[in-house]
Amino acid sequence: MKKIFFSFVMMLCAVCAVAQQSLQPTQELRTAVVNDDHSVTINVLAPKANEVCLNGELTDGKPQRMDRTADGVWTWTTKPLGSDLFLYWLEVDGVRTLDPGNSHVIRDVSYLFSYVILDSEEHPYGVHAVDHGTVESVWYEGSKSGMKRRMTVYLPAGYEKGKTKYPVLYLLHGSGGDEQAWIELGRTAQILDNQIAAGKAKPMIVVMPNGNMSDEAAPGYAANGLVRPGIPGAHRMDGYFEETFPEIIEWVDAHYRTQKDAKHRAVAGLSMGGYHSYWISANYGKQFDYVGLFSAVYYRNEMTAAVYQNEAEKVALLMARKPVYRIYIGKDDFLYQANVEKRAALKEKGYDYVYVESEGGHQWKNWRAYLTDFVTHIF
Amino acid sequence: MKKIFFSFVMMLCAVCAVAQQSLQPTQELRTAVVNDDHSVTINVLAPKANEVCLNGELTDGKPQRMDRTADGVWTWTTKPLGSDLFLYWLEVDGVRTLDPGNSHVIRDVSYLFSYVILDSEEHPYGVHAVDHGTVESVWYEGSKSGMKRRMTVYLPAGYEKGKTKYPVLYLLHGSGGDEQAWIELGRTAQILDNQIAAGKAKPMIVVMPNGNMSDEAAPGYAANGLVRPGIPGAHRMDGYFEETFPEIIEWVDAHYRTQKDAKHRAVAGLSMGGYHSYWISANYGKQFDYVGLFSAVYYRNEMTAAVYQNEAEKVALLMARKPVYRIYIGKDDFLYQANVEKRAALKEKGYDYVYVESEGGHQWKNWRAYLTDFVTHIF
Repeated sequence: MKKIFFSFVMMLCAVCAVAQQSLQPTQELRTAVVNDDHSVTINVLAPKANEVCLNGELTDGKPQRMDRTADGVWTWTTKPLGSDLFLYWLEVDGVRTLDPGNSHVIRDVSYLFSYVILDSEEHPYGVHAVDHGTVESVWYEGSKSGMKRRMTVYLPAGYEKGKTKYPVLYLLHGSGGDEQAWIELGRTAQILDNQIAAGKAKPMIVVMPNGNMSDEAAPGYAANGLVRPGIPGAHRMDGYFEETFPEIIEWVDAHYRTQKDAKHRAVAGLSMGGYHSYWISANYGKQFDYVGLFSAVYYRNEMTAAVYQNEAEKVALLMARKPVYRIYIGKDDFLYQANVEKRAALKEKGYDYVYVESEGGHQWKNWRAYLTDFVTHIF
Repeated sequence: MKKIFFSFVMMLCAVCAVAQQSLQPTQELRTAVVNDDHSVTINVLAPKANEVCLNGELTDGKPQRMDRTADGVWTWTTKPLGSDLFLYWLEVDGVRTLDPGNSHVIRDVSYLFSYVILDSEEHPYGVHAVDHGTVESVWYEGSKSGMKRRMTVYLPAGYEKGKTKYPVLYLLHGSGGDEQAWIELGRTAQILDNQIAAGKAKPMIVVMPNGNMSDEAAPGYAANGLVRPGIPGAHRMDGYFEETFPEIIEWVDAHYRTQKDAKHRAVAGLSMGGYHSYWISANYGKQFDYVGLFSAVYYRNEMTAAVYQNEAEKVALLMARKPVYRIYIGKDDFLYQANVEKRAALKEKGYDYVYVESEGGHQWKNWRAYLTDFVTHIF
């Protein structure tokens, strides 16, 4: 699956044409074309636009003014790219938009991105011809939080057939994310399907709850009004998620065939989810033998909640149990220095951890790669 | 949930700015604001654009040039609207785009739409404070088709707790749709949650397979390359879906707690899915006591497959069993006349059916409403 093609479906109708009943395409112009040298060509028909820019991970975050051809198609070909999932967008006369010819779209916080995948063994984010797990959107009744809350659950291939019990990875999103972030941007189902099929990871259940305790669910799925992603609500990193986390474990253990001990339970997360993972593992140290901190936040102002007290003692109890403790961060991450300090503090105490430093910054490109690695080290 | 607000998160950065590491919004301008009179106001910041048009269901399919304010915000307020889910999009200097301030997006075939829901008892498409069912993305092994194929399954609230067996509605999408169409555009989970909670529909499992037999899955989830929605492939309405449909029933009956008889099995679909429902019910007449044909196609050219032969005898056997047979279509549907002829043919034979005629054409607005009604008449 090295070459992935998208199709640009062109409706040959005038600007502001009356909405059609049928959505059948009549002609196609290809966009997101992966060329032989692993460059990608983006094409967009915009004859009336004064300027069309390509931006995002296809251009290393540097906006590129696309070239206009005589027939009003704007085009740009990237340099040869490595394997990865690349998010990109267009700016048409200053207005951010998606590639109209690419129906592959992912949301991150409030923003939508077109994407293209260049798959590889190192970055197995495509859908391979392997057995696929089931992905569920479930609702748990938050007895402590008093809310119905939506959660995404990955069940490995074969779960539905057998009686086997599985280990559980709790996988936590960042600030502004929600219960869909890891499964969509994180390609969790594809990474797990592929790593399990390759024998690199054990079959496991992955539970992806919503870490914003004021929200019931992602946009379009919330009963308490439609949420506005990225607008910080109450109960963000205030201890409430960590405090009520045991009810998620209880719900999962009651509803799935899980192995219910620390040896078969991991917690990992990115950014705010790393913060949550740090504090959840510290507070419930006897319940987790595996911890993954991806570009993690560790501290913030006003940490008055009980779960944030007695940190040293809590971490000591956890670390005495010798968990697999893996810290990942990119060299350009704005949290890099905070991670240097955290590692120094752990080292001073003589605690064991594994440190993995990557290129790049605070971005999904890294978090997908960290997950791909992390799942090979647990259970 | 009468009033639903969206937030327009404005990044105060220059055109084609370097990609930010953090996606935290810094300021907000609201769009998709539902006003007291049930009109909706759309706002978009586009100071460099020469023209911004609003199009779609907020403007009755008639494009509206938005008004530009001095600060570069383009704005438009609709007339007062009834309750519904409204799809819309913008055209910025002739390029189709989404509302950048609205993170609520649905794909239809190759096209993406922003949306706003004005909820009501008649159109219960919002998420209410009721128990929610589980939505699963599962893969079945197509033994006849020789492919792994993705399918969406709705399990009613309480399914995971008990031992109860449930009736099953097979719900089929139209040409160009996929296994996500009914759950996203159709708001199936919300309609079922709400109709079941209101006591208007029985708790049921809803199975939404992919009716394009050349495709494994929706865009981003297919192993056989990323599909190009709306580009007709092989095995579209050629009998292959109907022929291999029993393997879907077998898989569902093997994997879920289903009631495995005709009294507890329904099939319904829209457009091509109506065609599939017509032919599936005709070919497997003893297996379905409930049939829903929503804006259905009945015939096409080159119907050489075995499942399309001996129509009269097959339909006679089905109809002799007196199924609940409900035909829905809009007055402006391009398939209206074909449905007049089909009804005349059924009437001539003396077969019982219920006919529901609505306003409007071949559109999701109608299909959501038909589903909302249909589920109250089955099981």
